[in-house]
Amino acid sequence: MKSAQTRTVIENVRPEINAGAHAAKRVAGQRFQVTADIVADGHDVLNAHIKYRFGKAKKWQYAPMHEVGNDEWAGEFIAEKQGKYTYTIEAWVDYPLTWQHNIERKIQDGQHVNVELLDGIRFLEAAAKACKAEAAYLNELKAAFENEESYKYAIDEATSDRLHDIFNDNPSKQFATTYDRELPLEVDREKALYSTWYEFFPRSAAKNPGEHGTFKDCLDIIPYVAEMGFDTIYFPPIHPIGTDFRKGKNNTTTTVEGDVGVPWAIGNKEGGHKDILPELGSFDDFKAVVAEAKKHGIEIALDFALQCSPDHPYVKENPSWFKWRPDGTVQYAENPPKKYQDIYPIYFESEDWENMWEEFVSIVLHWNKLGIKIFRVDNPHTKPYGFWEYLIAEVKKKDNDVLFLAEAFTRPKVMQRLAKVGFTQSYTYYTWRNNKAELIEYMTELTKGEMKDYFRPNFWPNTPDINPWMLQGGNENLYIVRHMMAATLSSNYGMYGPVYEQIANDAYVGKEEYLNSEKYEVRHWDWTKTNKLKQLITRINHIRKQHSALQFTNNIEFCNIENEHILAYFKRSEDGSSNMLFVVNLDPYNKQGGWVQVPRHLMGIENGTPMRMNDLVTGNSYIWRDEWNYVELDPFQVPYHIFSIDY
Amino acid sequence: MKSAQTRTVIENVRPEINAGAHAAKRVAGQRFQVTADIVADGHDVLNAHIKYRFGKAKKWQYAPMHEVGNDEWAGEFIAEKQGKYTYTIEAWVDYPLTWQHNIERKIQDGQHVNVELLDGIRFLEAAAKACKAEAAYLNELKAAFENEESYKYAIDEATSDRLHDIFNDNPSKQFATTYDRELPLEVDREKALYSTWYEFFPRSAAKNPGEHGTFKDCLDIIPYVAEMGFDTIYFPPIHPIGTDFRKGKNNTTTTVEGDVGVPWAIGNKEGGHKDILPELGSFDDFKAVVAEAKKHGIEIALDFALQCSPDHPYVKENPSWFKWRPDGTVQYAENPPKKYQDIYPIYFESEDWENMWEEFVSIVLHWNKLGIKIFRVDNPHTKPYGFWEYLIAEVKKKDNDVLFLAEAFTRPKVMQRLAKVGFTQSYTYYTWRNNKAELIEYMTELTKGEMKDYFRPNFWPNTPDINPWMLQGGNENLYIVRHMMAATLSSNYGMYGPVYEQIANDAYVGKEEYLNSEKYEVRHWDWTKTNKLKQLITRINHIRKQHSALQFTNNIEFCNIENEHILAYFKRSEDGSSNMLFVVNLDPYNKQGGWVQVPRHLMGIENGTPMRMNDLVTGNSYIWRDEWNYVELDPFQVPYHIFSIDY
Repeated sequence: MKSAQTRTVIENVRPEINAGAHAAKRVAGQRFQVTADIVADGHDVLNAHIKYRFGKAKKWQYAPMHEVGNDEWAGEFIAEKQGKYTYTIEAWVDYPLTWQHNIERKIQDGQHVNVELLDGIRFLEAAAKACKAEAAYLNELKAAFENEESYKYAIDEATSDRLHDIFNDNPSKQFATTYDRELPLEVDREKALYSTWYEFFPRSAAKNPGEHGTFKDCLDIIPYVAEMGFDTIYFPPIHPIGTDFRKGKNNTTTTVEGDVGVPWAIGNKEGGHKDILPELGSFDDFKAVVAEAKKHGIEIALDFALQCSPDHPYVKENPSWFKWRPDGTVQYAENPPKKYQDIYPIYFESEDWENMWEEFVSIVLHWNKLGIKIFRVDNPHTKPYGFWEYLIAEVKKKDNDVLFLAEAFTRPKVMQRLAKVGFTQSYTYYTWRNNKAELIEYMTELTKGEMKDYFRPNFWPNTPDINPWMLQGGNENLYIVRHMMAATLSSNYGMYGPVYEQIANDAYVGKEEYLNSEKYEVRHWDWTKTNKLKQLITRINHIRKQHSALQFTNNIEFCNIENEHILAYFKRSEDGSSNMLFVVNLDPYNKQGGWVQVPRHLMGIENGTPMRMNDLVTGNSYIWRDEWNYVELDPFQVPYHIFSIDY
Repeated sequence: MKSAQTRTVIENVRPEINAGAHAAKRVAGQRFQVTADIVADGHDVLNAHIKYRFGKAKKWQYAPMHEVGNDEWAGEFIAEKQGKYTYTIEAWVDYPLTWQHNIERKIQDGQHVNVELLDGIRFLEAAAKACKAEAAYLNELKAAFENEESYKYAIDEATSDRLHDIFNDNPSKQFATTYDRELPLEVDREKALYSTWYEFFPRSAAKNPGEHGTFKDCLDIIPYVAEMGFDTIYFPPIHPIGTDFRKGKNNTTTTVEGDVGVPWAIGNKEGGHKDILPELGSFDDFKAVVAEAKKHGIEIALDFALQCSPDHPYVKENPSWFKWRPDGTVQYAENPPKKYQDIYPIYFESEDWENMWEEFVSIVLHWNKLGIKIFRVDNPHTKPYGFWEYLIAEVKKKDNDVLFLAEAFTRPKVMQRLAKVGFTQSYTYYTWRNNKAELIEYMTELTKGEMKDYFRPNFWPNTPDINPWMLQGGNENLYIVRHMMAATLSSNYGMYGPVYEQIANDAYVGKEEYLNSEKYEVRHWDWTKTNKLKQLITRINHIRKQHSALQFTNNIEFCNIENEHILAYFKRSEDGSSNMLFVVNLDPYNKQGGWVQVPRHLMGIENGTPMRMNDLVTGNSYIWRDEWNYVELDPFQVPYHIFSIDY
């Protein structure tokens, strides 16, 4: 029989993901707010705090909670360290504060409270034990409470802030309730939340047309990418490419001499997932790329694609990791009736799954030892969730800096599940969210619902797999806008270049694919080319570095503006130091204008108080005194305002 | 390390109340639908069922689930028996069905599938073991799959419905996942969901003015209540009433000779919670009332008010159950600065709480032995939740028919919590929800969110404590409408009479209280009085009995009608046999009209198909062929339509 003496109830704790089976996510130094519904019977004063601890620490730390209305309580702490925190909530009927609250109301009503004073002595005694610094004062009070002659002093002190603070700071926690579950919080390094990705094919990095690019060639591309302000370069798979059933240019099933194959068809007699395609260079060359990137403040991210070419060494070494057909052949990938004979999927139902899992973990650790701490995982939704949960946890045990980006463009609940089991970041539907209503709805889903606590979006306007319908016919203005929104709606974003900045948008007719895609062939690019788009990309990446409001995603608040072609939003950094307003014209052909409502209340600024709006792209600045302000945007000038706000 | 071979994930199971800490509620014979998000990696065919069992049964029963879209699955079973069920979900990648799905697509594509047929033999073999009745067929198929000569027969049968059904009905459940938690479902008797309450004060039942009514007098009132169609009579407390600090008429703190006191000030030297006020009669008289009520299909509900008068026997017998002040007096009830010196609250922090809890359980069981199976609990929100959880469970162990109505008019989360810990029904804010928007919003909160599964509303237009502002100035039309909505929005409703049907709405000036309230004095009523209101109450109570759509609350669907004074709603019984439309004019003074949209899709009727609309009050009937139909309601005729729909 549970004690009747415990009267407080804690429920509806947020964040709480699948009853605590999965962790909420933050980055080091980020604020972590916890809310809960807390009630007791009757009308007594309640109190509560968050209990939390880091890693294997035994000692709890405490963060105060307060009621925010309708029996909902909130508190917060700073998730200072990278690693795992545990948190829960403790709540109690606060008898000393209840006593003080009641005696105050009686005194105000003119009642004589001598009996109530005597009743309060037990709280003074308990507080004196808990708080040595105030023991003398409390003993003095006790004497006054007992003595009718010092009644005036007694009631003044009984209702004082000093006594309130003593009670509040030294809670008795008599008959306290602790929430049913201890919940996990995973704290990553800052890059988990704020990262700027540039993807390119190393094999297209050659100086001369017709040559196969090498890591050495990449050394010359790195400054180009750094100059544009990116902090992460992601390479498609760099491993030996299968020769059996190799695909030709534009995804043909037959090849001609010189066809280089698809980097995602991994493995041939020269090696597998732990090896480098000889045409790209040596391990030393690779290390040189990692080192050169580091000099420029850039991390190299690798692709982790768990599938094999028919000539991958695994097929011979570990035949039980593949599904064998009754005719003695290995089952190739298929999505009936479609066949992908150049790819053998992993057979995760294999009875040898434990060795297989260990081997796959060892692939990641192999590259991690070479300095790689970011992995873009190819099609994670075609491998078991339990496998990912294990792999990510194992890798993080060795190096807690490692980040995983889930490339799952699939159904919402599958994408959510991957984020829950541990993926640090996730590709999103941004690529196909074009109009104002779609963008607001999608951002709201990502940043205001349960997903905000475990799913970190990474926005990409294009990828080697996706040449979006909209961009296929788009002018430079549209590319400028699609980039700007990716980079300002989401603190994590990336683009696939130089296709993007060079607007190399020729499409394979009737498909959302690029013509002459680098997936199937070596391309040659003029890396010296420049244009307005590239300049604005560069400018925005630098703004992202300087203005911390852009280093968060969930801080977005959309602003009213009565024009369906204009999207306006506000962002504020957690510390309040960076406040920004974004206004973007979604129409790439026509000038659009409208009155935008600035959420002054979020900055605590009265109407009438001037705000200086600094346009960080044009260098213009304006004084806005009102809540509603007129803006007009010509897509052929700059189709957006990015304002930092001073007040 | 969890097996990689288990690929299915089950989450977001609904209902699931506080991660399974509290039970979902249904009544015997009611449908119980369970939904969940179920995903696996890849594109294989999934399958799932609800696993459930009754009471202590070891053997699970199964109910199939199917996908309803966006990876949400649903299934249902009938909660046939009164008592506790346990349910969870099991899901698996269905390898045989995946095989069938894939081979079908390949055959349609014209591929030769001899290898796939061979691959399917293992599924035939497993199915033959699981399903003896089809073993011969399956062996025949196996032979055909192995023999190129019977290829045509093999592919016809491989894709047949027969084979599909064999696979589906004999699931292999290889590598199945079971949901993390087993969840509770509490099934009550039908009255938990459908009840019709009439409250009156037995002491006001005397035939002659000036006399104190008795249980014997009540015998003559029972037919009156039965005639009106109520199935539950609820008596305010029937126990000895305290004399210390007794309240006078209209809640004065001084009494005059003959003042009878407040029934909720329980206990004096003649007895306490297990005794009867001598003026009402004897235990035999009480039993006669219970028996007479039963003859009329009526149950007697008693009040359970856990508080004591200063002269209650408990105060002497169990002084530790009360809080003692430093001056040697017992702490009376207070809500500072207000004092209620006629009431001693129970001190639930008492160290003797275990004996106290047992005693309180024994009070309920005492009356239960006298045939009482319904308790209206006074102010449950001022006693600990854990206590109620214990008491309700203990009582139900002895008699699972017992129902508890929570009289907690307080904050939403407190009311929700009481329902979660076991209260069968709850008073609501209906009493103060007057206009169309308020009513729709409140009903939506009760019937479409999480509350629908554990919180059963009981709608009261008035109580002895509440003479609502709106009714104080209302005409008979308003009383007719407020009753009609209570009785048709909610399957549980009650009213406090004869105050209500006699429109005895004199108010204590400036308060939401009755003047000369029966709480403080004996009143005398003319029980022969009749009026239009009483006739319509009677009619509606009989309609509720005949039309099962009115015996559910969560089945409500509001209908569009472009008039803010007209509320329209549709209800359909779970078996689909009873379909009803309600249209009510909320304006008690003016005729109102508008076009109401009938949700034909919920009945599966095409536009154009005639529906016969039977007005169950006037006896008129209409043929409606369209989706939108015009109605006009004159409050001085009948201010509403209650239609049963035939089609």
